[in-house]
Amino acid sequence: MPTDLQHLTQSEFKVLRKLLQKKYRELEKRFLVEGVHLVEEALDSNWRVEQVLVTDAFQQSKAFTQILGQARKRGAAVHAVGERELEHLSDSVTSQGILGVVNAREFSTEEIFSAKNPRSVIVALDSVGDPGNAGTILRTSDWFGADAVVLGKSSVELFNPKVVRSTMGAVFHLPIFRDADLREILPKAKQAGYTIISTAMDNAHALPVPSFPQKSVILFGSEAHGVSRELDRFSDMRLAIPRFGKAESLNVASACAIILALEKFSPHK
Amino acid sequence: MPTDLQHLTQSEFKVLRKLLQKKYRELEKRFLVEGVHLVEEALDSNWRVEQVLVTDAFQQSKAFTQILGQARKRGAAVHAVGERELEHLSDSVTSQGILGVVNAREFSTEEIFSAKNPRSVIVALDSVGDPGNAGTILRTSDWFGADAVVLGKSSVELFNPKVVRSTMGAVFHLPIFRDADLREILPKAKQAGYTIISTAMDNAHALPVPSFPQKSVILFGSEAHGVSRELDRFSDMRLAIPRFGKAESLNVASACAIILALEKFSPHK
Repeated sequence: MPTDLQHLTQSEFKVLRKLLQKKYRELEKRFLVEGVHLVEEALDSNWRVEQVLVTDAFQQSKAFTQILGQARKRGAAVHAVGERELEHLSDSVTSQGILGVVNAREFSTEEIFSAKNPRSVIVALDSVGDPGNAGTILRTSDWFGADAVVLGKSSVELFNPKVVRSTMGAVFHLPIFRDADLREILPKAKQAGYTIISTAMDNAHALPVPSFPQKSVILFGSEAHGVSRELDRFSDMRLAIPRFGKAESLNVASACAIILALEKFSPHK
Repeated sequence: MPTDLQHLTQSEFKVLRKLLQKKYRELEKRFLVEGVHLVEEALDSNWRVEQVLVTDAFQQSKAFTQILGQARKRGAAVHAVGERELEHLSDSVTSQGILGVVNAREFSTEEIFSAKNPRSVIVALDSVGDPGNAGTILRTSDWFGADAVVLGKSSVELFNPKVVRSTMGAVFHLPIFRDADLREILPKAKQAGYTIISTAMDNAHALPVPSFPQKSVILFGSEAHGVSRELDRFSDMRLAIPRFGKAESLNVASACAIILALEKFSPHK
């Protein structure tokens, strides 16, 4: 089936290629998403997808018709792109012949702390630097229905392609406050009725705990050093995951999964 | 401080360089570990470290004296290596100027199922292909004191440098049965009194469950497809982690962390 899609121009290609760099993503407030699943998730969300780029091979695929329909409904331009061009716009080895250009959304602290339910969990990341860890934490936060995620300034950038990929779409499912100064955000959370829970190795209540607060911000720190001392002083409650073997530490995304699960499975008061 | 370490010969370099390939790791039954922490963990373990390679810069570091002592005590040769050579032996961007050559250890099924405690957990991986996930699962298994890990044939190779790195040393802490045919291993586990628990999305008991068996093999499946049907028929108990948000799935290492934590925190019968 020949398609009548307009081809991405060389000048557009050059502009988009810059989005592989953090600097330009921040400047232009847009980013690239790769692969069928993420493009579909973006089109299904209330994020604005500017354009969808597809290779000739992808235009022959089953997924294409549906994506084309979705894209048209959402007002996203659909352009043809060469295999080599797509490779050059792609951070991964397997881009699956499809890529989306998505506009960054900004969330206010009001949106972040506006949970209507009496119970609410927000996940906050202080200096989580590994893209896979940050993305996995977003995915887990999404799974457990966290109301929002707050990404501290010194954490990895949300629109880093590896972060976006590891979220498996969660980036489009829940409000994420980026570039946060946690020294300002945590006091605001307290004012909004949240208890600040930090994860720690010592001087902490060992899990499982009898109950969790109704509203909590659960704060995770860097892979190497944990929650910084500067932020730890905002903690109302410190939790530790007890160790039974020889490992020196747990991966931060694994720790997050355990705490979010226990928060859900425990009584609240 | 000038050192009198013998320099790695060109022919030795060529032989070691091949260990970046799975084929040669399997053939020679040895593998490389990078960085101070992993080399120390290897030297501290009952795995045999053949040699330790250090750059000139590393020989100026504080860590060197201790590692040299440990290496000599353990009978590991210590050789000087050029920065560029080390880079060529290294899979990561930051090898920290030190690398170890470690002999693979083999564990028998008897060792795997020989837990002396009435309670025991063994983690089994069916087609977990991502090195970061497999390594993180080993690290988590180590943290929660699992008695062993069984790596199914179609899972990523244990000595893949990314797996070893993600274990953060766990590879040296607990018995790991590699290249397992799980169709043979799971029945042996049952004979040894283990309950086979598989993780599933449906037709399963939602966590938290009132109790866990005294001895369990907890089986995790591939990132995309979960536990294969062929292996699922060995399951005595199927567990699901309930979803509260929109994510389609949880990362397998995150799921493992949650289940191992709940296993520890729940009553047993």
